[in-house]
Amino acid sequence: MEKWLKGDERLDYLLAEDLRIIQSPSVFSFSLDAVLLSKFVNIPYHKGKIVDLCSGNGVIPLFLSGRTTGQIIGVEIQQRLFDMAERSIRYNELEHQIQMVLGDVKEVPKQLGIEKFDVVTCNPPYFLAHEASDKNLSEHYAIARHELYLTLEEAIQAASKLLKQGGKAAFVHRPGRLLDIVTAMRAHRLEPKRMQLVYPKEGKEANTLLIEGIKDGKPDLKILPPLYVYNDNNEYTDEVRDILYGKEQ
Amino acid sequence: MEKWLKGDERLDYLLAEDLRIIQSPSVFSFSLDAVLLSKFVNIPYHKGKIVDLCSGNGVIPLFLSGRTTGQIIGVEIQQRLFDMAERSIRYNELEHQIQMVLGDVKEVPKQLGIEKFDVVTCNPPYFLAHEASDKNLSEHYAIARHELYLTLEEAIQAASKLLKQGGKAAFVHRPGRLLDIVTAMRAHRLEPKRMQLVYPKEGKEANTLLIEGIKDGKPDLKILPPLYVYNDNNEYTDEVRDILYGKEQ
Repeated sequence: MEKWLKGDERLDYLLAEDLRIIQSPSVFSFSLDAVLLSKFVNIPYHKGKIVDLCSGNGVIPLFLSGRTTGQIIGVEIQQRLFDMAERSIRYNELEHQIQMVLGDVKEVPKQLGIEKFDVVTCNPPYFLAHEASDKNLSEHYAIARHELYLTLEEAIQAASKLLKQGGKAAFVHRPGRLLDIVTAMRAHRLEPKRMQLVYPKEGKEANTLLIEGIKDGKPDLKILPPLYVYNDNNEYTDEVRDILYGKEQ
Repeated sequence: MEKWLKGDERLDYLLAEDLRIIQSPSVFSFSLDAVLLSKFVNIPYHKGKIVDLCSGNGVIPLFLSGRTTGQIIGVEIQQRLFDMAERSIRYNELEHQIQMVLGDVKEVPKQLGIEKFDVVTCNPPYFLAHEASDKNLSEHYAIARHELYLTLEEAIQAASKLLKQGGKAAFVHRPGRLLDIVTAMRAHRLEPKRMQLVYPKEGKEANTLLIEGIKDGKPDLKILPPLYVYNDNNEYTDEVRDILYGKEQ
């Protein structure tokens, strides 16, 4: 293991896909939201070029590699997370399919090419820069959680630039930002077409929003059945278990 | 009964509120959507001036009369429906609380007063003027169902003009128009604050959207738990039965 891990890192299972992922308690770990986005987005199985923005330790590219044979590029601005993602990709022997890019999402369309991609996913920082409820956290957490280097609108604009006409962009965010998301998506030619709300359990307000738009698509939003994370016994619901651990279990 | 009913009209129960409502098969009858909106909207019990736009046969004012002691004005452009609403109000002896206005929603703010109201409800025509899938229906249906005399944005603009700062506007519509609704609400100073999606049954896409905004409110949208109309046996769910028939049953 020493050849793969550094410092306090550990090698965690990405169970549903039979993959491993390098994580560390001192930087931002992947969340259920990233896994839900990987499952929610519509991707072609046999072809298609995919970009994942704000990739962190590469969880979304790793998950997507189980759903498509297409090429996947992950973009991450933090050297530490980028480096963990690269090692996870090598550990899983997925270098042929997944490539990580260290860089600023705003600059990526110029770097990777305008209107060259079929699908873009993004699990962006959720909180506004001034919402520093967790100021005391490390810089790694702050960058991943707050709009310090990238605003929601900049992420949406970059996604739109990368996509071909008819390409799909999928985002995960907080319901409180729904209006900002859909306004920015429309402003940048990404017409919202599918939305799903995630509720922590029955009877509670939604706490996560999944949304997918099509570049230059025709207006017609569908709202999918809701997804509940926990049942009344505070265990994962069958649906979330299937997503996390695979259907066979 | 003859003194209350005309032609093919019948007197239907509004069960949860122990009221009766005059309906007719040859004009638009009230729908579950109107009942759900009446239940969804936040209204103060002891005070407040309420306007219901696109009132039809008065179902929303009648329902709301059970939830508040405040004054309620219903606005309807069709003489035939206006007349049925007036008679239902008299039949239920609610003239002291509900007043119907025959008129065009676009002209109503001038007529009733700008920024004088606490709550506005509206179950507007759902379909665009050109979406004439039911062209063969009577003019009464066409006006109630299509944006022939009133567009969604005009309805939202009228609601905003009627409301005091901090007043609430609640709408019911199709999920496919979510983006148009929230865009128009923000454009007219109605910040969306509460949303609920209605699903015909578990596992199906949402087919109705309830949304409430506050005039000049702070951005922060909450998405309430979903509402299911039918259970797996195609009977109303307990929640919808309670809304339609009251909790006691």
